[in-house]
Amino acid sequence: MPLSEQQKKEIQEQQNQSNTTKRVTAPNLEKILYEVMPALDHGFIRVIDYMGDDTSIVQSARVSYGKGTKQVSTDSGLIKYLMRHWHSTPFEMCEIKYHIKLPIFIARQWIRHRTANVNEYSARYSILDKEFYLPSKENLAAQSASNRQGRGDVIEGEQAKEVLELLKNDAARTYNNYEMMLNQRFDGSTIDESKKGLARELARMNLTLNTYTQWYWKTDLLNLMNFLRLRADSHAQYEIRVYADIMLDTVKKWVPITYDAFMDYRVGGTEVSAKGKEVIKKMIKGNPCDFENSKLSKREWNELMDSFDLKDKIV
Amino acid sequence: MPLSEQQKKEIQEQQNQSNTTKRVTAPNLEKILYEVMPALDHGFIRVIDYMGDDTSIVQSARVSYGKGTKQVSTDSGLIKYLMRHWHSTPFEMCEIKYHIKLPIFIARQWIRHRTANVNEYSARYSILDKEFYLPSKENLAAQSASNRQGRGDVIEGEQAKEVLELLKNDAARTYNNYEMMLNQRFDGSTIDESKKGLARELARMNLTLNTYTQWYWKTDLLNLMNFLRLRADSHAQYEIRVYADIMLDTVKKWVPITYDAFMDYRVGGTEVSAKGKEVIKKMIKGNPCDFENSKLSKREWNELMDSFDLKDKIV
Amino acid sequence: MPLSEQQKKEIQEQQNQSNTTKRVTAPNLEKILYEVMPALDHGFIRVIDYMGDDTSIVQSARVSYGKGTKQVSTDSGLIKYLMRHWHSTPFEMCEIKYHIKLPIFIARQWIRHRTANVNEYSARYSILDKEFYLPSKENLAAQSASNRQGRGDVIEGEQAKEVLELLKNDAARTYNNYEMMLNQRFDGSTIDESKKGLARELARMNLTLNTYTQWYWKTDLLNLMNFLRLRADSHAQYEIRVYADIMLDTVKKWVPITYDAFMDYRVGGTEVSAKGKEVIKKMIKGNPCDFENSKLSKREWNELMDSFDLKDKIV
Amino acid sequence: MPLSEQQKKEIQEQQNQSNTTKRVTAPNLEKILYEVMPALDHGFIRVIDYMGDDTSIVQSARVSYGKGTKQVSTDSGLIKYLMRHWHSTPFEMCEIKYHIKLPIFIARQWIRHRTANVNEYSARYSILDKEFYLPSKENLAAQSASNRQGRGDVIEGEQAKEVLELLKNDAARTYNNYEMMLNQRFDGSTIDESKKGLARELARMNLTLNTYTQWYWKTDLLNLMNFLRLRADSHAQYEIRVYADIMLDTVKKWVPITYDAFMDYRVGGTEVSAKGKEVIKKMIKGNPCDFENSKLSKREWNELMDSFDLKDKIV
Repeated sequence: MPLSEQQKKEIQEQQNQSNTTKRVTAPNLEKILYEVMPALDHGFIRVIDYMGDDTSIVQSARVSYGKGTKQVSTDSGLIKYLMRHWHSTPFEMCEIKYHIKLPIFIARQWIRHRTANVNEYSARYSILDKEFYLPSKENLAAQSASNRQGRGDVIEGEQAKEVLELLKNDAARTYNNYEMMLNQRFDGSTIDESKKGLARELARMNLTLNTYTQWYWKTDLLNLMNFLRLRADSHAQYEIRVYADIMLDTVKKWVPITYDAFMDYRVGGTEVSAKGKEVIKKMIKGNPCDFENSKLSKREWNELMDSFDLKDKIV
Repeated sequence: MPLSEQQKKEIQEQQNQSNTTKRVTAPNLEKILYEVMPALDHGFIRVIDYMGDDTSIVQSARVSYGKGTKQVSTDSGLIKYLMRHWHSTPFEMCEIKYHIKLPIFIARQWIRHRTANVNEYSARYSILDKEFYLPSKENLAAQSASNRQGRGDVIEGEQAKEVLELLKNDAARTYNNYEMMLNQRFDGSTIDESKKGLARELARMNLTLNTYTQWYWKTDLLNLMNFLRLRADSHAQYEIRVYADIMLDTVKKWVPITYDAFMDYRVGGTEVSAKGKEVIKKMIKGNPCDFENSKLSKREWNELMDSFDLKDKIV
Repeated sequence: MPLSEQQKKEIQEQQNQSNTTKRVTAPNLEKILYEVMPALDHGFIRVIDYMGDDTSIVQSARVSYGKGTKQVSTDSGLIKYLMRHWHSTPFEMCEIKYHIKLPIFIARQWIRHRTANVNEYSARYSILDKEFYLPSKENLAAQSASNRQGRGDVIEGEQAKEVLELLKNDAARTYNNYEMMLNQRFDGSTIDESKKGLARELARMNLTLNTYTQWYWKTDLLNLMNFLRLRADSHAQYEIRVYADIMLDTVKKWVPITYDAFMDYRVGGTEVSAKGKEVIKKMIKGNPCDFENSKLSKREWNELMDSFDLKDKIV
Repeated sequence: MPLSEQQKKEIQEQQNQSNTTKRVTAPNLEKILYEVMPALDHGFIRVIDYMGDDTSIVQSARVSYGKGTKQVSTDSGLIKYLMRHWHSTPFEMCEIKYHIKLPIFIARQWIRHRTANVNEYSARYSILDKEFYLPSKENLAAQSASNRQGRGDVIEGEQAKEVLELLKNDAARTYNNYEMMLNQRFDGSTIDESKKGLARELARMNLTLNTYTQWYWKTDLLNLMNFLRLRADSHAQYEIRVYADIMLDTVKKWVPITYDAFMDYRVGGTEVSAKGKEVIKKMIKGNPCDFENSKLSKREWNELMDSFDLKDKIV
């Protein structure tokens, strides 16, 4: 179910808009505004609107009458300082809005981030698109043996084929029955003129969780970074990480200075506990230090060693 | 899948707790604490904890050193005043926590209320219970002809039977295949020792939206009333209204004075627009007033007439 | 302490910006962007940035691929419908940012609205401007005799003069001593080269609550309307109402259709309790109804009569 | 203005309450419930109510039917895990409410934490207490020379005396004039029967920012820890740190396991940026590493060296 001609036309019309404004603009983000950036097999992300840029952070941190910016180097220093010391409010001064199409089980994970504004396509009001997420073969992972909520090796061969068949058939069958109950096809046509359809708010319960939904999602830069820090992380579920990676790239286009500070201090950085600091201090001084005398749990020790690339010390 | 013996025992143990506290208590709510109050076919609501009572609202509104209450009549007058004039902060001073089991498509509607704290049972980490919501016959409504997101007449006879069969069979089949993919049954037993199971975070996508989930949900009294005002309303979807009605009753047991004010001003009350006021004023004075000269849209006119039980004036 | 030449220049530079954007714009709001709109004796409001317009509400309510708008009349009908039925999320899709200068005692009232983003000028970091709010004579009201938190008649003659003298002298003296303690004048010049100054975070405690502060304040349209509904109301303190009225006008320029619906349903509308509805119903039918048989408290009765302009029935 | 006999009696009555509850209790917190814990010269903190304990975090993380706890060691491991991996929602399941008396300039800093519920004593409605914060001599710090928003050396001798005199006299004078304008003393007595008083909502503007106010403040454990992490930190203003330290102690009494994890991972821990990690890695391996080849700014380098007690490397 690719974009309809009508949808393409509507998107095109938005892209062709050219308005004059006294507001600040983010030229690199403007370039991809409204564009459909594909995610997973049938999903996408589109940037619909935004407010502010790097200079807006500086401007509000200084409560300035004008742009509040001095030179790029000073501004960059201030933004890094704010990021390092967990100042939050200046980053709330930029806002962005996305149009996102995503599988329902991912939408359920996503919505746990409450500090955002959401308008979801209503399945009480309309019929959902006939589209389901089916993992590609390389993403068909077995349950991890060591991590209760993670993935292990890829499932291959016959079993992989069976799994994909089950997912595909069940989604198709339940969607067909959804149409039967509605007495209406996804394209709006009636199935049996002599019958009434079940209420849409009821019929939807027959759909599987890999059915696609869509929403408008708007948040400020601070909360977007909180979202991305968790969801672009290697521990996040692959399917949401696909979306997070695309959004990370929109942040780079929108507020490049903030993006750099974010990558350095949050995404690429690490935290060390009070006990962990004692371990690192000993190691720097060349004093003997191993798991046994570290006062850390095995898990903590290994996470710490992993953070500082001391793989040979993992126990 | 009724409560297991283990679950019953755990609930019983909580109910048998008897602690001494200097905090205020709500005796009628204590009586039903931890109790399983059934909702729909397999769901439930349990009150797990609470903080404050009617006197806490009065106490904080007065920023008092002591209980802050005078006599029941004065306190009641103050609470009514606060409710009537949309004072919000004193009602935020009471907090309640529920354990709720509910179908996923209702959980998705519920979670749109963001000002609450939620911990949901994790299907990345655990296997979901083998339980699906199937509407009772009297709730099997057709799509409303007049309201795009409402219900019309009940579906009956053969069609009703067919719909229920479809829902039942699809839920059962997709759940069985969920177990197949996990290579594990809902009771934890392995299906085929020679195989790995698909990661739980993936397998769950095959479940239908009427599968039950559960969560701990905590909110303050103000936000609970905002939730109930919308969800205990006759326009709310029946399935969420069942839960809202149970919760309304817990509010009555918890903060009876606030409950009365809430029923009078919010649930039983109505709003009249500036234009609507002009209509009502004319009617009170006995001046001629009908739809044509009202400046209201047809929909607004009918809603207004309906509010004041003037059914014969509906156009 | 009017705007400095430097500040005027910075504002002018912002106003001279002319960028091209694919985003929607609000032409009437663009006209006044960055402009200093005076409030009280030394305060002001400036619109710094905004996101979205009336069509953005329609677009997100419809989760549309394009602009989502049909014709003005349909869009207007949808916006009115959303407002009437308390739909909240579509109105959260528009965002606005103000730069505001206001007396501290008003800032303290303002900040109680928590769902906004704020960056305040830091008196830990900088010296506050030498400006204090002094009420104009017609706003020098006596305490209300009937309403514990309201104003009564204007204070006149000698007493008025005395009050204004006290306010003026105390603000001037405490500010001078603030400078003395800082060992620095408001213009940054040092007072006594041989002395250290007290830390700014301490010295500020000597200032009176009518000293002006300033902040960047950003919120979405829904929360802005919640703010305006309370603060543009006749029961709000005069000094905050001055700001609310200016902001109300910016809403009109920004989202004129939403503004009309807001004025009709919220600002100009009224609420009637369940008991109040019974009274109105009787009155419409011409049945005898007075305070004694109304089941309302005296206060409720009077507020209801007042709402519907039945002044002669007030008891 | 110490506690009145009436206030002491009201507090005593609360402390004498002994109710039976099925809810969990925190015995060490119960012991100090309602108690006045002094802060600064006239302020205090009192714990008024709470909900949940360490087991509630475990219970909701497990979405358990019963208490959800296993043995203390397992529970402690889970809580540490949740803290280390920034899980937030389980910590939101505990709630606490304080009654706090504090100077207005500190209240203004405090209120910037928005995710809390607040009812402040209304100076529109009542007369504020005649109490002002005056720093003790050892807290009379000069402005820091190196840090624009910090404190330097203590101010001593004659200048210290002068500063304290100014603060004391200005607070006393402005309060007296506040009474004059109100035509009412702080104890409620009228000054001149022939005159009206200025509206309280206006007269309050004459008070200085070290005047004490008070409020009820309620928040969940997660947001309380966010508050304490910033405000119990050595960079926080001394006057708010006094309150934070007292609250930190109430957390220890309330949820001791969470307290330990919080002290280890947040308060005592540190963050290392991506670039900082490279530096630490080199140092552990004994490779040459100094500021020049570190790619860090001077400020970043020094903060990093300071974190790991490498004072001799500070440049």
